[in-house]
Amino acid sequence: MRIALGLQYDGSPYSGWQTQVNHNTVQDELEKAISAFVGEQASVEHPIHTITAGRTDTGVHALGQVVHFDTNVEREDFSWVRGVNSFLPSSIVVNWAKPVSDEFSARFSAYEREYIYALQAGPCRSPMSHSRAGYLMLPPGNWLDLEAMKKSAECLIGEYDFSSFRSSECQSKTPVKTIYSIEIISEQPWVYFRIRGNAFLHHMIRNIVGCFLQIGQGRQKPEWMTEVLAAKNRQIAAPTFMADGLYLAKITYPEEFAIPQPWLENSWLPAKVIGK
Amino acid sequence: MRIALGLQYDGSPYSGWQTQVNHNTVQDELEKAISAFVGEQASVEHPIHTITAGRTDTGVHALGQVVHFDTNVEREDFSWVRGVNSFLPSSIVVNWAKPVSDEFSARFSAYEREYIYALQAGPCRSPMSHSRAGYLMLPPGNWLDLEAMKKSAECLIGEYDFSSFRSSECQSKTPVKTIYSIEIISEQPWVYFRIRGNAFLHHMIRNIVGCFLQIGQGRQKPEWMTEVLAAKNRQIAAPTFMADGLYLAKITYPEEFAIPQPWLENSWLPAKVIGK
Repeated sequence: MRIALGLQYDGSPYSGWQTQVNHNTVQDELEKAISAFVGEQASVEHPIHTITAGRTDTGVHALGQVVHFDTNVEREDFSWVRGVNSFLPSSIVVNWAKPVSDEFSARFSAYEREYIYALQAGPCRSPMSHSRAGYLMLPPGNWLDLEAMKKSAECLIGEYDFSSFRSSECQSKTPVKTIYSIEIISEQPWVYFRIRGNAFLHHMIRNIVGCFLQIGQGRQKPEWMTEVLAAKNRQIAAPTFMADGLYLAKITYPEEFAIPQPWLENSWLPAKVIGK
Repeated sequence: MRIALGLQYDGSPYSGWQTQVNHNTVQDELEKAISAFVGEQASVEHPIHTITAGRTDTGVHALGQVVHFDTNVEREDFSWVRGVNSFLPSSIVVNWAKPVSDEFSARFSAYEREYIYALQAGPCRSPMSHSRAGYLMLPPGNWLDLEAMKKSAECLIGEYDFSSFRSSECQSKTPVKTIYSIEIISEQPWVYFRIRGNAFLHHMIRNIVGCFLQIGQGRQKPEWMTEVLAAKNRQIAAPTFMADGLYLAKITYPEEFAIPQPWLENSWLPAKVIGK
């Protein structure tokens, strides 16, 4: 049978989602915990292999990650939650579990992904936001030009070749993706970028945020974003902004699978950012 | 000359404020950074020794800590901020600096201290609040009885002997302290306790929060708080609740010293909790 899990994690101690030789990844921790919960015999007969909706990068967090795996072990839904959590470190938490049909794939059934980038800007970095938010040093009395950033976001909405925002390590088959919406919410000294799209290239959001901050600081005009997009050339965009503030917030699936909404209220982000 | 500094820190990596032999304290880090900034000669002539408003315990955070020290080095205010920060780890940040008269003492001039306790409660702990908020496990669908907790808080307002909430290691000369106000603010799955008083005993707030949570879960009636207070006996109160969620938020001084208000908006706590 196939089980879907919703999970949250603090990505800062991990080398991203995907299994690696050194085993310091979220996938390794999760598969180890599920295997421990189902027991040695069941995990040898049917090794636990998880498929994820979004393979987050080193240091990137998740508030609404979804994975699935196949097993011949049957348990109550909340028993999966409590049981797997008891074998996980405090940086990874399973929020819900449910059996799904074999047609469901956490990766291929997903048609929309939402990320939130949390930024703190000002003369002093908050020690409490270390590894949980990006930081931009601004001199005392300065603030970002929000209207300029919002204006520059408009050209990114729609289906485009996003090669200018793609890292050289990106494994996606195509650089053409669709962005559905970009919201920029500010409450000084915080700025939150909410980006919804069908899928994203490697480093795409951090590269877009880097460009927003050039525009927000007045180093580039809003029209520059159009030029960067049109160039289809990574060289002209801003440097990749730090991973610390990036959160995989929500994955959307066809209604027929009845996948629970993520427990965003379980996070430290303000209510207006998580859409409460 | 005497310099006052405002600072914030993530207390989780430290053995509290006060200098210890193993040197893993906020005071050690701060004095090392100030000494490095003033230079070897000045710090040998006039060793840097900081006096603080609140000697926070292991794992306790500060958003509005105030300290002072004496030095013969003169610098611009923002130069102290930038300079000392450049020698501090990312878990400690100086927000402001200013020269003060020799009559000012960060410790003895303070007449009011405010602490905030941030708690997350529910079936799953948020990985993002690890070491930044306390956590209480509640079964799915359950929530705390806020009215009962608020009612139980009333008996604590005023000048009392708080021996029931005092740790055996407390070095205060008297167990008599005055609590000015207790606010309990809830936004499920979060609860924030804001407590203002003239001063607090060792573990006093964590012991009071422990009692609130007994009442909030219906294990004790609101009137139980009155009994605990009257007993003047640590044995009958609830166990000391975890340090993770405790923040020294604000220290108040006589207006003549013109001490800046803390940059609470620099923290991740919701606007309504930090009183914006």
